[in-house]
Amino acid sequence: MRYIVGVDVGGTNLVVGTVPEDGSSLYGYQMEPTDVAGGPDGAVKQIERLVTVSLSQARAELGADIDIAGIGIGAPGPLDTHSGTVLLTPNLGWTDMPLRDRVSSALGLPATLDNDANCAVLGEWWRGAAQGGKIVLGLTIGTGIGGGIVLDGKIFHGASDVAGEFGHASIDQSGRKCNCGNYGCLEAYAAGPAIARRALEGIEAGADSVLPQYVNGALDRLTAKTVSEAARDGDAFCLEVIRETAHILGGAIANLVNILNPDVVVICGGVTAAGSHLFDPMCNEVRQRAFRPGVRACRIVPGSLPGTAGVYGAAASYMAQAWGTD
Amino acid sequence: MRYIVGVDVGGTNLVVGTVPEDGSSLYGYQMEPTDVAGGPDGAVKQIERLVTVSLSQARAELGADIDIAGIGIGAPGPLDTHSGTVLLTPNLGWTDMPLRDRVSSALGLPATLDNDANCAVLGEWWRGAAQGGKIVLGLTIGTGIGGGIVLDGKIFHGASDVAGEFGHASIDQSGRKCNCGNYGCLEAYAAGPAIARRALEGIEAGADSVLPQYVNGALDRLTAKTVSEAARDGDAFCLEVIRETAHILGGAIANLVNILNPDVVVICGGVTAAGSHLFDPMCNEVRQRAFRPGVRACRIVPGSLPGTAGVYGAAASYMAQAWGTD
Repeated sequence: MRYIVGVDVGGTNLVVGTVPEDGSSLYGYQMEPTDVAGGPDGAVKQIERLVTVSLSQARAELGADIDIAGIGIGAPGPLDTHSGTVLLTPNLGWTDMPLRDRVSSALGLPATLDNDANCAVLGEWWRGAAQGGKIVLGLTIGTGIGGGIVLDGKIFHGASDVAGEFGHASIDQSGRKCNCGNYGCLEAYAAGPAIARRALEGIEAGADSVLPQYVNGALDRLTAKTVSEAARDGDAFCLEVIRETAHILGGAIANLVNILNPDVVVICGGVTAAGSHLFDPMCNEVRQRAFRPGVRACRIVPGSLPGTAGVYGAAASYMAQAWGTD
Repeated sequence: MRYIVGVDVGGTNLVVGTVPEDGSSLYGYQMEPTDVAGGPDGAVKQIERLVTVSLSQARAELGADIDIAGIGIGAPGPLDTHSGTVLLTPNLGWTDMPLRDRVSSALGLPATLDNDANCAVLGEWWRGAAQGGKIVLGLTIGTGIGGGIVLDGKIFHGASDVAGEFGHASIDQSGRKCNCGNYGCLEAYAAGPAIARRALEGIEAGADSVLPQYVNGALDRLTAKTVSEAARDGDAFCLEVIRETAHILGGAIANLVNILNPDVVVICGGVTAAGSHLFDPMCNEVRQRAFRPGVRACRIVPGSLPGTAGVYGAAASYMAQAWGTD
């Protein structure tokens, strides 16, 4: 059995774990806030440290002589998988950062790089909620909205590693200007901050809600997750915010059904904490908008590996790139 | 050398031709208005007749003993390629029509069925403007807007033959209601009738334009093609109608670039007669909206096989289904 270290570099958290090639478990799980202030050097040092800790924990559990094949890294894009370079990450402030080779040098192990959302979707296909899917689309809803396409168990990268940027498909051509330069991007309406902002606006306008109690009155700490939790606990105002989000997401997913006709759509991120309050109206919106044979063929599910899908997927991406035909 | 008869069943025209397996030519080209009034029986009879004529012309040219392998049919969807059934075609009024087997029985030859837009895009990949593309997306702009995805030379059907319905991806979630049940579908803004309607509205509102001369004053005969031709000839009003269309299409193509990151997008249909008046602002819109690595990787081209892409593609689809691994 060979082992791969999966590294999930997020704008918020850095997550690392050691995964056997059969994906049966995850050893030496590590999570820390990403060292953003330290720039590329800080991040590489932090990755080096967490990988070292993860490996030593894995060795303590499995034996000192386990076969470590390499390191699979998932990072925010746009990036170039061939050169292993992160081209630009607004959240981390990196430009043309040769992350793959820097991590590989620091740890003396071969490494691969892929988009973080691609990795999360691949992880859900490999070990999570999208198992068995042949045409799997995933949305990762967090600070932004990432996405990934997994066809027959392989990440579909497109011609230049851009494929799957579902958060930057417009849902209204003359809509809200997005950071990316486009107008009306899904991300501008349904990412975590947009959900929190809609809730905050409602609270400030006097909505009757228990939501402030979830953040001890510190409204600037509202997140999509707190809104989702309050909705799940029955708060009517938060339920409405979630329902609005569900309609927006459902419309976007309907487009993906008509464009790609997937058999699985997996939704990842804190917003899935809202459970059926999100999924019921969302799936209903998809049913009303998309072609019937497309709706019938597709199951829409929440991710089942919160916090670890990206690590599993980064390890799987390593195997595909280093051992496979990718 | 084996030969395949390609049949392109459109809501307006029925086109038939006999194609050698290397795609080097097209023999016995036939085109007639589709017999819509005659229902399924009328259409099958018409296909039988045109295929027979096409084959006898091909035999006259190539010899009586040429090897006819079968018939590839492209038809409007939604349809089921496995059973060879057209599920529903609003334009032709068919429901659950076993087109493949009826044509096969009528002519005593094996047959296959695929979506007409899929076939057109496959034809452009095989013999037309999309040659060499690995990730090819096509839009067929006519009475509706069809689409197709060709990956590594194979039609990507999706889980239930719905993939590639780009005309029914919404560009405005709260926009115009579409016949399909969705709101704001691209088809409702940029298909031929929508272009003609915008032109007609402008003329009726007193726009200064030579357009009426193109239809001898019969404004009800305005089509996207006449608008495109007048624009190409320099009519300022029609140029503006085309520019508007270009912005809408460009926004939709930008979404496809961010979702699928193609290396070729091919645009088919009469509207391409507008040439650079359409393509320049359209490509500019894509550049402004889509991710840069996606824009750089993608060429956007007009189809080069007007009237025959669907026939070539139907023949190629036959080979893929009957001889290949599809």
